[in-house]
Amino acid sequence: MASAEPKESPVNNPGLHTTIDEATKGYFMQQTMFRIKDPKVSLDFYSRVLGMSLLKRLDFPESKFSLYFMGYEDTSEAPSNPVDRTVWTFAQKATIELTHNWGTESDPEFKGYHNGNSDPRGFGHIGITVDDTFKACERFQNLGVEFVKKPDDGKMKGIAFIKDPDGYWIEIFDRKTIGNVTEGAA
Amino acid sequence: MASAEPKESPVNNPGLHTTIDEATKGYFMQQTMFRIKDPKVSLDFYSRVLGMSLLKRLDFPESKFSLYFMGYEDTSEAPSNPVDRTVWTFAQKATIELTHNWGTESDPEFKGYHNGNSDPRGFGHIGITVDDTFKACERFQNLGVEFVKKPDDGKMKGIAFIKDPDGYWIEIFDRKTIGNVTEGAA
Repeated sequence: MASAEPKESPVNNPGLHTTIDEATKGYFMQQTMFRIKDPKVSLDFYSRVLGMSLLKRLDFPESKFSLYFMGYEDTSEAPSNPVDRTVWTFAQKATIELTHNWGTESDPEFKGYHNGNSDPRGFGHIGITVDDTFKACERFQNLGVEFVKKPDDGKMKGIAFIKDPDGYWIEIFDRKTIGNVTEGAA
Repeated sequence: MASAEPKESPVNNPGLHTTIDEATKGYFMQQTMFRIKDPKVSLDFYSRVLGMSLLKRLDFPESKFSLYFMGYEDTSEAPSNPVDRTVWTFAQKATIELTHNWGTESDPEFKGYHNGNSDPRGFGHIGITVDDTFKACERFQNLGVEFVKKPDDGKMKGIAFIKDPDGYWIEIFDRKTIGNVTEGAA
């Protein structure tokens, strides 16, 4: 690593471009989509446990699926017209798009979705910045949330992983501890 | 559906809570993590093609992996101290965390990662709001990006899906067309 340059400089990261093409101006990360078995269970989890709101629902009866866009935006600012509300939703950063293929919630043959952390691997998790990881996890525990890693487990104190109702992993961290706990990696 | 209430009301969405627990105040969606084979190839794609910046890199030599946090933030505002830069990164919404397990890029036995859209399914895609889907996709095509769906394919005109270097799907849409194309579902 060239010591005169920050670790994140192109000289230390082959492939990286720092001259951003003007054509990409205004682009932003709007959504992360994963499939869910039962919206009743997932809506409860993402709203009651994680504090998100339902920004928009889209239903596709011909293809038998619905999309639930969840996020931390204030829906009191959302337009009342349904189409305008879609446009408003797609103007928000960092939403979660829950895809429900109709019928999985009551299908005894349905085996559930794959969370990407066992073979075949790929997707790993989403991550939420909270005010205080330990406080948040105490609340999650009281609410019966399943943990992959509690904040005191292992070497990475102050970082936790919980599971959503379909088994997807959600990392929990805060700005007070993330710097110190990853100091050796920074 | 109760017609007096918006489609997104709890009365139309069993499980949904609209009284947000104060304990979750300040929470935000910070990251979406997936694994990549070769950082050189992925850094090129996410920076040159999609216009993202490398917000922070974290290296874990003992466990032989590195994390690359990519996003649309202005890194000229990032602190120069490495630990402060980590904290700054975790204060940003909507980043992408690319996990590189060392060695996959040169391992002839490595079979690649699973994008979640064939069995076993789960994760589906990330989605980026652009200024103009057709214009953006013309540029992607000129840059040799692989398409799952071009914006003119199928019924959903103005929505596209491209593939990142590992085969993960990235949906491309804009605020000008998303409302009309999903009008029947709104």
